[in-house]
Amino acid sequence: MQIKKAVITAAGNSQRTLPLQTVVDSDGETKTALRIIIEEVLATGVEEICVIISPGDEAAFRRAAGQPTGRLTFVEQSSALGYGHAVFCAKNFLSGEAFLLLVGDHLYVSTGSKRPARHLVEIALHENCAASAVQATHESKLPYYGVVGGRLVAGRKGIYEISDVIEKPTPTQAEQHLIVPGLRTGHYLCFFGMHVLTPLLIDLLEEEIRNANGRNVQLSPSLNKLARRERYVACELSARRYDIGVKYGLLMAQLAVALAGSDREELLAQLVDLLARREIH
Amino acid sequence: MQIKKAVITAAGNSQRTLPLQTVVDSDGETKTALRIIIEEVLATGVEEICVIISPGDEAAFRRAAGQPTGRLTFVEQSSALGYGHAVFCAKNFLSGEAFLLLVGDHLYVSTGSKRPARHLVEIALHENCAASAVQATHESKLPYYGVVGGRLVAGRKGIYEISDVIEKPTPTQAEQHLIVPGLRTGHYLCFFGMHVLTPLLIDLLEEEIRNANGRNVQLSPSLNKLARRERYVACELSARRYDIGVKYGLLMAQLAVALAGSDREELLAQLVDLLARREIH
Repeated sequence: MQIKKAVITAAGNSQRTLPLQTVVDSDGETKTALRIIIEEVLATGVEEICVIISPGDEAAFRRAAGQPTGRLTFVEQSSALGYGHAVFCAKNFLSGEAFLLLVGDHLYVSTGSKRPARHLVEIALHENCAASAVQATHESKLPYYGVVGGRLVAGRKGIYEISDVIEKPTPTQAEQHLIVPGLRTGHYLCFFGMHVLTPLLIDLLEEEIRNANGRNVQLSPSLNKLARRERYVACELSARRYDIGVKYGLLMAQLAVALAGSDREELLAQLVDLLARREIH
Repeated sequence: MQIKKAVITAAGNSQRTLPLQTVVDSDGETKTALRIIIEEVLATGVEEICVIISPGDEAAFRRAAGQPTGRLTFVEQSSALGYGHAVFCAKNFLSGEAFLLLVGDHLYVSTGSKRPARHLVEIALHENCAASAVQATHESKLPYYGVVGGRLVAGRKGIYEISDVIEKPTPTQAEQHLIVPGLRTGHYLCFFGMHVLTPLLIDLLEEEIRNANGRNVQLSPSLNKLARRERYVACELSARRYDIGVKYGLLMAQLAVALAGSDREELLAQLVDLLARREIH
């Protein structure tokens, strides 16, 4: 397996302008969120990126992408038919190759020595199979995520062989199918928004779309089928994810990126200054 | 005098994408910076707004503006010929009326009971003349601003009759022309990015442009002439300005807006959480 292609999804109605927002990156440069995600992708060795967008957004996205070194393709998702459908829109671009998949509304801050997407790609190549980044997450947050069940791969810290994938499971579903031995009680492995996927996933999505009769198609059901057909692992990365689509998400992402970077001291000083000089109304 | 029209400038090369950035406003709603500025303007009683943009930016700006209650006009500044030239582009829109002028790359946070643009318009109407918002600023920052000289209007706290306007004055120019009795030593009245201007200003700009032979035309020289031809006041407002065009400017503006609004407690909690959970590398 080799990973030379990546897909970034940014066609969701609520996501459309998020990749265009600017953030000061950990290197101190002001970039769009799209540019930051593209750099994260290119650092893995990927050479071609396909961005799934809403119709009419290409000009703005092209400007927001800047001049990346890799080849950039934009594909329009003609109608909002779900995340699985958005990924399937990259079928021609992928032409049967394995790929890295990222969402356009998350920023990642590494808490270890490796960039998270790069770390995930290394694991997928080493395990020679599909791999999804996950994070042990408290059960109270199950309604927000795709969740995986499985068991630790012997001798590989933080890597799990996936048996089941359920999108936004109920507590009962989670208890029956998704408990992973070794995790803290009440915690589950939730998706992190970053996957390395094999060509079979696109076939499974195609089948799903054929049977959907125009209903929305999510990604998790096809990932669940993938787990039954191929070896598929989950891995915990040393990183934090920031959803820039939620209220104050962009603010928290910017703070996290800046506090983890070389501007930490400067930023803390500005923060203290701002908190101190608030006038009393 | 009445103020029914406003001009927002957003054509500067470095400003082009700033009004499109999203910020959670003090009311807790996520809006573009442009939308926040438009709401600030409409709260003054202005009914028609002209936004000066770079060629090709209208679609993005129209989307970023949302559905304001006032009438919105976009005028393209065909080439980057300076701030004075950008303001002059609104000549036809203004058709000889007085107007409120704001920049598209600043957000304002009130520290008093009144919204700053509204406060400025009230003062201009009361004084029945042109008025610029100013802030007492340390001399070390003179290289960044337009600066006014003048004297306090008797009996009117924080309102000054302007005698001189100099753009980015040298220390010598400032000492000779811009010292304002009553300010702290080493402090000058610097522009705040918000003005109420009379039709004469447009005539003065036209003259300036005619004599410029294609060179850039700034606003301050025409304001300086205005001060010699008409009564023209400066006023200190109870507000802080946040330049969203500088590094971390958007972050600081967002923090300031949120900390001054109803989400203050929630945000402080998130901030403490973020600072606490930083991993050591």
